[in-house]
Amino acid sequence: MRDTGEVLNITGESLIGFASVQATGATFHAFDPEQGIHLEPVFHSAGKMEINRACALAQAAFDLYRETAPQRRAHFLEAIAQNILDLGDALIERAMAETGLPKARLEGERGRTIGQLRLFAEGLREGSWIDARCDSALPARQPPRPDLRMRLIALGPVAVFGASNFPLAFSVAGGDTVSALAAGCPVIVKGHPAHPGTGELVGRAIQRAVAVCALPEGVFSLLAGIGNELGTDLIAHPAIQAVGFTGSGHGGLALMAVAAGRPQPIPVYAEMSSINPMFLLPHALNARAESLATGLVESLSMGVGQFCTSPGLVLAIEGEDLERFRGAVTHALSERAGATMLTPGIHGAYEHGMMRLAAHPQVDKLGNGVAVQGVCKGVPAMFATSAASFMQDTTLAKEVFGPVSLLISCADFEQMKQVAEHLEGQLTATLQMDEGDHEAARSLLPILERKAGRVLANGFPTGVEVSYAMVHGGPFPATSDGRSSSVGTMAIQRFMRPVCYQNIAQALLPAALQDGNPLDIWQRRDGQLTK
Amino acid sequence: MRDTGEVLNITGESLIGFASVQATGATFHAFDPEQGIHLEPVFHSAGKMEINRACALAQAAFDLYRETAPQRRAHFLEAIAQNILDLGDALIERAMAETGLPKARLEGERGRTIGQLRLFAEGLREGSWIDARCDSALPARQPPRPDLRMRLIALGPVAVFGASNFPLAFSVAGGDTVSALAAGCPVIVKGHPAHPGTGELVGRAIQRAVAVCALPEGVFSLLAGIGNELGTDLIAHPAIQAVGFTGSGHGGLALMAVAAGRPQPIPVYAEMSSINPMFLLPHALNARAESLATGLVESLSMGVGQFCTSPGLVLAIEGEDLERFRGAVTHALSERAGATMLTPGIHGAYEHGMMRLAAHPQVDKLGNGVAVQGVCKGVPAMFATSAASFMQDTTLAKEVFGPVSLLISCADFEQMKQVAEHLEGQLTATLQMDEGDHEAARSLLPILERKAGRVLANGFPTGVEVSYAMVHGGPFPATSDGRSSSVGTMAIQRFMRPVCYQNIAQALLPAALQDGNPLDIWQRRDGQLTK
Repeated sequence: MRDTGEVLNITGESLIGFASVQATGATFHAFDPEQGIHLEPVFHSAGKMEINRACALAQAAFDLYRETAPQRRAHFLEAIAQNILDLGDALIERAMAETGLPKARLEGERGRTIGQLRLFAEGLREGSWIDARCDSALPARQPPRPDLRMRLIALGPVAVFGASNFPLAFSVAGGDTVSALAAGCPVIVKGHPAHPGTGELVGRAIQRAVAVCALPEGVFSLLAGIGNELGTDLIAHPAIQAVGFTGSGHGGLALMAVAAGRPQPIPVYAEMSSINPMFLLPHALNARAESLATGLVESLSMGVGQFCTSPGLVLAIEGEDLERFRGAVTHALSERAGATMLTPGIHGAYEHGMMRLAAHPQVDKLGNGVAVQGVCKGVPAMFATSAASFMQDTTLAKEVFGPVSLLISCADFEQMKQVAEHLEGQLTATLQMDEGDHEAARSLLPILERKAGRVLANGFPTGVEVSYAMVHGGPFPATSDGRSSSVGTMAIQRFMRPVCYQNIAQALLPAALQDGNPLDIWQRRDGQLTK
Repeated sequence: MRDTGEVLNITGESLIGFASVQATGATFHAFDPEQGIHLEPVFHSAGKMEINRACALAQAAFDLYRETAPQRRAHFLEAIAQNILDLGDALIERAMAETGLPKARLEGERGRTIGQLRLFAEGLREGSWIDARCDSALPARQPPRPDLRMRLIALGPVAVFGASNFPLAFSVAGGDTVSALAAGCPVIVKGHPAHPGTGELVGRAIQRAVAVCALPEGVFSLLAGIGNELGTDLIAHPAIQAVGFTGSGHGGLALMAVAAGRPQPIPVYAEMSSINPMFLLPHALNARAESLATGLVESLSMGVGQFCTSPGLVLAIEGEDLERFRGAVTHALSERAGATMLTPGIHGAYEHGMMRLAAHPQVDKLGNGVAVQGVCKGVPAMFATSAASFMQDTTLAKEVFGPVSLLISCADFEQMKQVAEHLEGQLTATLQMDEGDHEAARSLLPILERKAGRVLANGFPTGVEVSYAMVHGGPFPATSDGRSSSVGTMAIQRFMRPVCYQNIAQALLPAALQDGNPLDIWQRRDGQLTK
């Protein structure tokens, strides 16, 4: 066991409002998948007592926090960003130890996390997310029309479950937390046990920002924990009004069931699983079979395939060009080495998925990378099957989380379309195409729009930009709610609901709806957007 | 039995695309609650065969219909409006016979239905509902940012369940249907068996509009039916992607369970039950106890109390002013006569609810209206209890659908706030207040914003304007999804989901996202709204 905890001031406690609490539940340690050793300090799982305390604080904070000026919440998000930066290399080192991810990747992810906080701060100031609307009174009309105004307000306290694969950008201060805080919702994070020290460091950065910005204590809590009970107990608590989750389909479905079974059902935004089909259209395949193969192997190996948007399925039409592509894939894979996966659990599931594919009578192996010594090493690989076999066996469409992809050979373009129609909901769908493929693309696009949250051309889906137009979402089972995105400014809309004000005096109206427009935001006046 | 069917060309069939189909399920007749007689013709309940046919047509129509130009869908909605107007008095007469509602009310409701269709047509042309976004490529940045564009697209075929209490505005061509059609979703309506002839007439008006506008046949179907099986079978069909419902809590919860239990869960927008609390603040009560009493009795008697927004709960602080209010209520009620309710079922449930209140040991009767002879006559009434009794017995907070309200006397303003906190989600909450009440209102508002979709001052909640700023929604159990409104232009958002396009060639992009902005709509370019 290695002790980096003390140096970094990681205590293994839960953060309940401004307090640090050593809970009395099961204890656990972080695990270094690279070294194969546990890391100090010991973490103490929170339980019902901590849930009740965090929820009571969140509920008490809610009315005050949701009505803070957008400008003030923007400052708060920027303070969180600065506090995370101030953690310096210590944060990166602890995250490296807990995840096996390389330094450059984690530094990039930190940049993305900071950028995300700042983008939401920018969006908060712009104000169109409030969707302010004012319909003038028409007293002379029969029947008279009252003065009607509408805005979106925050839903209430939100429970956030971070992902193992993005210990910064999708975890304690990740997209779910940031969009919920921006909306005006207090957040209670159930920390991911795969990177509890990283989580605690970031949690303390948020905790300090709450205090420095003089916001109500209950705006943020972080519950350390291992096992499922803490999470299900948390979302069963009546104070919780929405859930953000990134993880497995199994986990997401379990949370959806708890949320739907509450006396008051609440929305769950779960980003779950996706195999991200990539269509190699004929002209593109003909023109660049080799570079597509190299690019694909690079994309599927990136981060040891531990991306929600890793390209797990490739479709192409049989023929000479496909043979060239297959050969180039085999070659490219042979030059790739295995690398450390995030946790023994993820590595074990990957090995299991690989064995299932390898043992499948209708599946051939195209090739794999070089095995390396170590506890959690995932080796890239690619398998192949026919479109007919793929459509016959639904298990072949299940995500194998890791650096692996399945090539589907289609007899013709019609069969490629059939496979597309056959697919479940996806986060992304990619078209590799040249101009000669436009007609084929035009006939695939309506299918892909129905199946995926993002459609790409001539790229690889693994990069997810945090911006205004990004959609990281998609129809079930890619997510629990295809009407939403968990990345980009659109994510804020998940945590809001509309309230209409009828004939309410100016003095009592929220600033966003007052005649003078003191927030200087976009308002829809009698149907027209104005500022 | 009276035969108005033949004259009006009502056949008792289901409308499946362009066909009229006499289904083979259970038969039923419309019932005239005023006369107490059944009406011709016989209606034939649709079953699985009709569901499958309607769903197959809807699915086949979807990709084409959702990509029709907004301008074309606007024309379609206007054609529906004209076709409904062209039905003339025949529609009003059949609706009167089937519902017992008076002529003026139904003519007003027709006006509202037409206005709703035209408002959505206007909104379609304006185009901001598409939420078009474009983030420029940043090729020089590290890592380079791709060209990203986003729009909302239609969810898919929608199943609509109309309400009994608005045979025009919330039924076959009601808010759910119109907003789904506007979004680009084909609609399959499960007709309400309480007004099947009215439904068929309106259904044929839509059917004709689909044909005249040369839209795909599957854009609209109307399934006649009695019993729950048709509805649950319909939403279990894999083609259906969302549900709009207005009705009882019991019915809404049943549909939610079916939708959540599908292999692919789908969203349900159910508008269910609300008691619409009204707070009589002290200065207002002092200044106008009598006019508040008269206004309340008028509001609760309107439409025989058969409005989702009927004021079923009144809160005031004990004292002389409240005594004056009570006396005035008793007097105002004594001058009101019973009137015909929509169906024997609704009337029976109202009688049952009244008996339950009358028999409650902690509830007193303040007064009631004059009983009249007839089969389905609902007599207005008002009951009273203490805040303590109300908070002890959750059954007192359950909606009694009809012209009845419960007065809660609170010991002081703190107790009034406690009752407000104790309430479940509501469609509306009303404040009767004068300037001297502003401080009290300011402290109630945060609670009411959390509890209700619309907060009113100095009015009665029964009027629901169809406009841009209206919210007809509210936290569970008022609706299944407090993030939505079933009335007003916001309703369209329920039936859409975002799709992002990454590096897609201009020639393949949807018009809404092309550089030239051929639709001339609002676009968010690099975060800035522009046109």
